Amino acid sequence: MTAKTTSTILILGAGKSTTYLIDYLADSCAKKDRKLILADLDIELAKSKLKGKPSTEARSLDIDSEKDRLALIEVAELVISMLPASMHPIVAKDCLMLGKHFFSASYESAELQMLKPEIEAKGLLFLNECGLDPGIDHMSAMKIIHEAQSKEEEILSFKSYCGGLLSPTSEDNPWKYKFTWNPRNVVLAGKGTSQYIEKGDMKFVPYHQVFKRTETIHFDGLGDFDGYPNRDSLSYRKVYGLERIQTMLRGTLRRAGYCKAWDVFVQLGLTDDSFQLELPIESTLKQFLNSFLPYNEILTVEEKLAEAIPDMDFPTFEKIQWLGFFGNRKLPKTTGSPAQLLQAILEEDWKLYPEDKDMIVMQHLFEIQTKEGFRKINSSLVCFGEDATYTAMAKTVGLPLAIAVDLFLDQKIKATGLLTPVIPQIYEPILAKLEEFGIRFIEKTEF
Amino acid sequence: MTAKTTSTILILGAGKSTTYLIDYLADSCAKKDRKLILADLDIELAKSKLKGKPSTEARSLDIDSEKDRLALIEVAELVISMLPASMHPIVAKDCLMLGKHFFSASYESAELQMLKPEIEAKGLLFLNECGLDPGIDHMSAMKIIHEAQSKEEEILSFKSYCGGLLSPTSEDNPWKYKFTWNPRNVVLAGKGTSQYIEKGDMKFVPYHQVFKRTETIHFDGLGDFDGYPNRDSLSYRKVYGLERIQTMLRGTLRRAGYCKAWDVFVQLGLTDDSFQLELPIESTLKQFLNSFLPYNEILTVEEKLAEAIPDMDFPTFEKIQWLGFFGNRKLPKTTGSPAQLLQAILEEDWKLYPEDKDMIVMQHLFEIQTKEGFRKINSSLVCFGEDATYTAMAKTVGLPLAIAVDLFLDQKIKATGLLTPVIPQIYEPILAKLEEFGIRFIEKTEF
Repeated sequence: MTAKTTSTILILGAGKSTTYLIDYLADSCAKKDRKLILADLDIELAKSKLKGKPSTEARSLDIDSEKDRLALIEVAELVISMLPASMHPIVAKDCLMLGKHFFSASYESAELQMLKPEIEAKGLLFLNECGLDPGIDHMSAMKIIHEAQSKEEEILSFKSYCGGLLSPTSEDNPWKYKFTWNPRNVVLAGKGTSQYIEKGDMKFVPYHQVFKRTETIHFDGLGDFDGYPNRDSLSYRKVYGLERIQTMLRGTLRRAGYCKAWDVFVQLGLTDDSFQLELPIESTLKQFLNSFLPYNEILTVEEKLAEAIPDMDFPTFEKIQWLGFFGNRKLPKTTGSPAQLLQAILEEDWKLYPEDKDMIVMQHLFEIQTKEGFRKINSSLVCFGEDATYTAMAKTVGLPLAIAVDLFLDQKIKATGLLTPVIPQIYEPILAKLEEFGIRFIEKTEF
Repeated sequence: MTAKTTSTILILGAGKSTTYLIDYLADSCAKKDRKLILADLDIELAKSKLKGKPSTEARSLDIDSEKDRLALIEVAELVISMLPASMHPIVAKDCLMLGKHFFSASYESAELQMLKPEIEAKGLLFLNECGLDPGIDHMSAMKIIHEAQSKEEEILSFKSYCGGLLSPTSEDNPWKYKFTWNPRNVVLAGKGTSQYIEKGDMKFVPYHQVFKRTETIHFDGLGDFDGYPNRDSLSYRKVYGLERIQTMLRGTLRRAGYCKAWDVFVQLGLTDDSFQLELPIESTLKQFLNSFLPYNEILTVEEKLAEAIPDMDFPTFEKIQWLGFFGNRKLPKTTGSPAQLLQAILEEDWKLYPEDKDMIVMQHLFEIQTKEGFRKINSSLVCFGEDATYTAMAKTVGLPLAIAVDLFLDQKIKATGLLTPVIPQIYEPILAKLEEFGIRFIEKTEF
């Protein structure tokens, strides 16, 4: 690659979280004599996202057509996959075959790890986990970790929480939640067994306990949030070079009270995705709820619910009532798994309106043993969206990726191989650039 | 088949529940000039089960060797599979190809159902679900159902419970339970979503609720048992010809109090089979338990457990304590899924001693609308084992199968096709013969 060649960037997928990514790269391509191709099954969507900017081109692509996919990748120097995560290995293999660089905001999968030797041999960069979570979480944490390690301090404890929520101005329902992200992932959140380590003890949390195993996380000016442990935190000890750490937990944030109410659905089985229901058409939410409660000749659904969930409090009851579970509201969908039926209900009630503003919150909590004594670091990020299109989610997912691509094409990132942004060469310039966009951590230190 | 031909019966597998099956058929073969071949990987086991009886032959067979398997099946007229259920479709296909009849005590799988037209075309009998549960449950229930239907009575409710437990004389631990059946199946019992219908309402019970959704079932002279709903009861409406029934539930029995204590393991995640643990060698049961409890600087494991399970009572605590979870007992196994580690503990503590006697309990509860009014039928079976070899489990699983085979070869059962014992031609003579062995239902009717 020489500075004289026109670089072509190919973005696959023009979905929700691509707004800032596209804007940033379209502008940068115009300035730097590069070309940006945005491909989506829906070419009109791609065109609307590009807004007719110079140096850009919208293309229609059925990602399942290998021929069309390869033809498009062939003309690019670098591919950014914004497709569903299951598509990444397929696109990555295409890129490897055609000698193209590959970028994504998704987890580095086992399938990608198998390609590592060949990626290295070809001198390509395959950079994954370069969005928000995973992405900004890694970068901001590694900065603190590397600083401490350079001073030979010992990190005793590291907890990291992140949430995609609503700006307080848009918190207009009792859940203080709307979908700013894939609804299915929200409904299935926490499935599997969460694993972490605390004071040297391994901890394993089954799905039906995870929304009870919460910690209160406070943000100045915003108040309290519920943090629950998210999937396998243990594997991050190696990623972060913290093999001997005594406490390590990665978690997800919801507004205070959300987890207790959501846990009602988990406890009863309404988030079950393992079997198919076929309820009579015209069934109500109340009937749906009742099918997860024991039969009782005398008690009402509300009374049976209170009996099944002994620690139910009024804020919890109110959240479930607000969704219409105790009235005559009809189910929007009567066949599918319980989780799919619940998702259909929530998609009506947790819909983001055009004027709604979302919010990203992230907090790292470190406990560090220094030569002088014990130090606590609380590093927090808060980012607000502008509306339902220019969301904080799209900003924090898309900008790190856009910046990484730009830095790489400018040869300011020179690393190659299969990487995540845990090395200073990558995270330092990205974090610096993000600050220009107001994506900035506030650090509080306590001795 | 003519009476003059010597029929050869082939039994595949000489495991735990084959004792009575083999004895019955060996004796019958001697009388009726038939031959019995018993094949097992362990020929010594097969020999010891046959006790050198005339007309019998032990054979060594690696079931994975297609060549050896086919050679053995070729010489038989009829094959009884006592292999693990996953092997049945393979053996059934062999039998179909070679034109042999096939009998088992396992569920009629979807794979077998696909063979149905060919089984019928070849005029073979493939009889499954002809053991205890499934088996005796079907036969005894269908007898009552057919009787009611012949009188044009309407069956409003049918609940059926079964358990493989201990004779009261061997109930010498607080769980009143030992393994008389596959330990892994006991540890994973209730996984999935149980489904039933009650008073016209479909009910869905997730795994983590199933040991709370119990009903007390009483047996005269034995006392109380916990009955919990077992898997998909809804599909049995069609099997039993009760498509419009308002209440239908199939469940499993444990001694009263067992379910509440077992539920502690379920709630905490100790029965999780979805991930692998690697605990330090020399870990104690208490440390294993602690890894499923939240961290707390002050509270003991016992105190944290009481906090996690608010409705814990003394009998529950005692059961868990008896297993050694609060002492210094070492884990017999430290790597594997939580369920595998728990199984290893229980295999030491719930071991059946040679002199232990097991017990089978089964109860059908019917509510029937007759022309004269409302009738309740309670039909109960209790069967005691003689020792750890001649178990009630082996008797109730093996005898129905042995009797069915014998009746078929005697041409007293003439049906062919893919069947379960829900038709009078099959269940009537089997139930009659079982009574001679003391396997007899006591029926109480209440008007």
